[in-house]
Amino acid sequence: MLEKLDLNRRVKNKDFKEAKDQLEIRLSIAQRRLLDLKIPVAIVFEGWEAAGKGTLINDLIQPMDPRGFKVHSTITASEEESLRPFLWRFWIKTPAKGRIAIFDRSWYQRVLTDRVEGKVKASELAKNVADISSFEKQLIDDGTVIIKFFLHISREEQKKRFHKLRNHKSTAWRVTSDDLKQNKSYKKYLTAIEDMLAATDVDSSRWTVVEAHNHKYATLKVLDTVVRTFEQTILKAESQLKKPFKKSQLAPAIKNSVCLSSSILDRIDLSLELSKEEYSDKLKKKQAIIRDLEHMLYIKRIPLVIVYEGWDAAGKGGNIRRLTSHLDPRGYEVVPVAAPNDTEKAHHYLWRFWNDFPKAGHIAIFDRSWYGRVLVERVENFCSAEEWRRAYREINEMEEHMANFGAIVLKFWLHIDPDEQLKRLKARQAIEYKKWKITNDDWRNREKHEQYKDAVDEMLLRTSTLYAPWVVVESNNKLYARIKVIDEVIKAIKARI
Amino acid sequence: MLEKLDLNRRVKNKDFKEAKDQLEIRLSIAQRRLLDLKIPVAIVFEGWEAAGKGTLINDLIQPMDPRGFKVHSTITASEEESLRPFLWRFWIKTPAKGRIAIFDRSWYQRVLTDRVEGKVKASELAKNVADISSFEKQLIDDGTVIIKFFLHISREEQKKRFHKLRNHKSTAWRVTSDDLKQNKSYKKYLTAIEDMLAATDVDSSRWTVVEAHNHKYATLKVLDTVVRTFEQTILKAESQLKKPFKKSQLAPAIKNSVCLSSSILDRIDLSLELSKEEYSDKLKKKQAIIRDLEHMLYIKRIPLVIVYEGWDAAGKGGNIRRLTSHLDPRGYEVVPVAAPNDTEKAHHYLWRFWNDFPKAGHIAIFDRSWYGRVLVERVENFCSAEEWRRAYREINEMEEHMANFGAIVLKFWLHIDPDEQLKRLKARQAIEYKKWKITNDDWRNREKHEQYKDAVDEMLLRTSTLYAPWVVVESNNKLYARIKVIDEVIKAIKARI
Repeated sequence: MLEKLDLNRRVKNKDFKEAKDQLEIRLSIAQRRLLDLKIPVAIVFEGWEAAGKGTLINDLIQPMDPRGFKVHSTITASEEESLRPFLWRFWIKTPAKGRIAIFDRSWYQRVLTDRVEGKVKASELAKNVADISSFEKQLIDDGTVIIKFFLHISREEQKKRFHKLRNHKSTAWRVTSDDLKQNKSYKKYLTAIEDMLAATDVDSSRWTVVEAHNHKYATLKVLDTVVRTFEQTILKAESQLKKPFKKSQLAPAIKNSVCLSSSILDRIDLSLELSKEEYSDKLKKKQAIIRDLEHMLYIKRIPLVIVYEGWDAAGKGGNIRRLTSHLDPRGYEVVPVAAPNDTEKAHHYLWRFWNDFPKAGHIAIFDRSWYGRVLVERVENFCSAEEWRRAYREINEMEEHMANFGAIVLKFWLHIDPDEQLKRLKARQAIEYKKWKITNDDWRNREKHEQYKDAVDEMLLRTSTLYAPWVVVESNNKLYARIKVIDEVIKAIKARI
Repeated sequence: MLEKLDLNRRVKNKDFKEAKDQLEIRLSIAQRRLLDLKIPVAIVFEGWEAAGKGTLINDLIQPMDPRGFKVHSTITASEEESLRPFLWRFWIKTPAKGRIAIFDRSWYQRVLTDRVEGKVKASELAKNVADISSFEKQLIDDGTVIIKFFLHISREEQKKRFHKLRNHKSTAWRVTSDDLKQNKSYKKYLTAIEDMLAATDVDSSRWTVVEAHNHKYATLKVLDTVVRTFEQTILKAESQLKKPFKKSQLAPAIKNSVCLSSSILDRIDLSLELSKEEYSDKLKKKQAIIRDLEHMLYIKRIPLVIVYEGWDAAGKGGNIRRLTSHLDPRGYEVVPVAAPNDTEKAHHYLWRFWNDFPKAGHIAIFDRSWYGRVLVERVENFCSAEEWRRAYREINEMEEHMANFGAIVLKFWLHIDPDEQLKRLKARQAIEYKKWKITNDDWRNREKHEQYKDAVDEMLLRTSTLYAPWVVVESNNKLYARIKVIDEVIKAIKARI
């Protein structure tokens, strides 16, 4: 496929200047319109070493307003990055609404040079391609435009360019031994590139191969592709703005969406309890064990992700405190999840959780989590029905990616019944320094108990996976609940080390 | 000093439980009040290895609302961090308003272990102490409360603790060879610690030495110190809230603040210009040179900070574009500075600029900058007179810290006269795709021209230093201005490499 391209396409000097000027003006206008329309854009530059990525990126950004874009050079993973799943460093750099993220090298390194150079096992290839597809799909579903360029040059051209770079004092360092290897094994890389292009050239996210021997030709092709994609996106977005508001998008058929004949929650035995003596005794022993296990996780570089969800006043805070009170604070972090702030709202809803993914060997405890999407956001109509329905798959994909990296993922639903909840809310109001814990939301949520229950049931059903199971914790008795969580964490860690 | 302490202070079990419970309740209440009052807090834990920092920090955070604090473990600098000035990694972690940042190890490492272990030259010690003092002073002046603990144990106690840790499978890894060296050279470290405590125990930021042999005693001392500091801070803040509003704080005496007999700006020769031919010819040659120099900076790991300030319509955007159009985008970044967002407003005004400090070998070009404090914020009363007056010193300190790290710091003031400005603003309005560049602010700023001029003059006078000079660029002729900036950048880089 690539070999059939005419790499020597060129453009005349005179035509170039005029065409470029025109494209730059269109680009400058389109970029500002995208900012107004709050459409995020990711532009990927892949290609042979010395194909001219840097220069082309610079040509592309010159006409743009610097408030609107950011260039990310992602050649090798830093230490911080290599301690996280391979998509982490790209997720946290995904563009906010209206912004353009330009990737000089990208997530495709994983299935390209990393693969050819043996840094990733061949058996992981299919998994990685799947991870990349779901990553791009999630962004596109959220409204992001992805433009992907592959800059192609021939083996001879590459050799010539390396030679030129090495002959100059200030650029000699740029040609590494890996680069020279690429030229030597050009054929092998070519096969990998063609495989990659074929596997990831999907309708929603197409590759544009750029014949890059002639810099002027390449510049125009890149500018033209970007400008046309921007303009089409703007037209589409503007025509949608004019469409009448669809009521169905805001009125999810909650009742019908659950395919359950009976509720999981109804089968939970809330009478389970522990006496104070049993509790104190067990707690002391188990807290010592878990501190030891925290160190073992660190030694083995295994990340642990713990999610706490549950009814208001189910005792999440106290439960987390018993789990962590004997841990080393250098090894764990409690991530409290409240309503998203401005910056978070401008990104994909999963973005902020990616930011908090723990380093290998560390523990992140989420006090509420990404499940807000299918709980509060669903019930309160903070997102569309289409969005929360899609979220089950997206969440499963994210957790699978974590698990593929070697993370232990545990999710606890702290369950209490409405009577117990009422008792606790009333008790809180009676104690001065605990009043802050109760908000009007708590009372409102109680009124929507049935709707929340449906949402919880569907969540437990759709997102309990082998790699990231839900554990329902009977929490009418707080002491029982605390020991159960610690037990589950101990069990999960021991199964792994 | 430290040797005279009674390290064996202890507390009875029964008293401990009761005192701790009381302190935890007070802490929990005070923390929430600090959040309401938007007071940021930094708590520093320094001390001997194995003195029990981790456990004490964990005891401290248990009663707190996790939404309010974050623990930062800063034992060794990561690669990203070591490519920046030593305070960078702490600056970017300074707490937002109402938040508590807990540092397990801190900026004091620089003058403590780094010094004893020879990682930092002895000649740098005084500089580092000065850098730390101005860092803490800047935070305190901005309203941050700093609490500093030093956990003290004897040589014998440390030896005993290392022994215990090493005898246990899950903790043996925690005792490093550096730790054992510390025990061996205990005396040497002790001297360094005493020097450090003496040099940095200032009125506004005192050290609390904690006798840490007995864990219960240490816990109570830490909790008690934190609680009392919090409560005093709250009392003070609340009494200030009640005070009548002082008008003088919002009405800076602009005229009197300038001690200049004549304006620097008035002496600028705005008739300087270049012909189109001269310009094209020079530009081409100089852009090639500067691309080469960009590579040399990278090879030598020298960071370059360029600040652009200037009148509206002075041509900053076009000037930056000519400077960067032939650079490798992997090596430079243009940082456009607009009004601060929510997150930025919740921090010290210098915080967001620290975040954008370039890695060693990279270039950061600030399109507007921290000088906003003494320009727009001063003239528009966005900050108090006391704040912008303080800013000259703070900015000089920050730039000196950059320069101490080896950065080249260049600052350009793009100067045009009011007639030229009016001509340009009108021209912009006539071109459809350039209209976005003009806002109502531009017209309003013109009316305040004299006030801005005073501010610019004072800024040039007070912040032009040997390590970070201002260059006034005559910009009535854009072509001349572009070449002048490129020339100055070339000159500055060549002087260094």
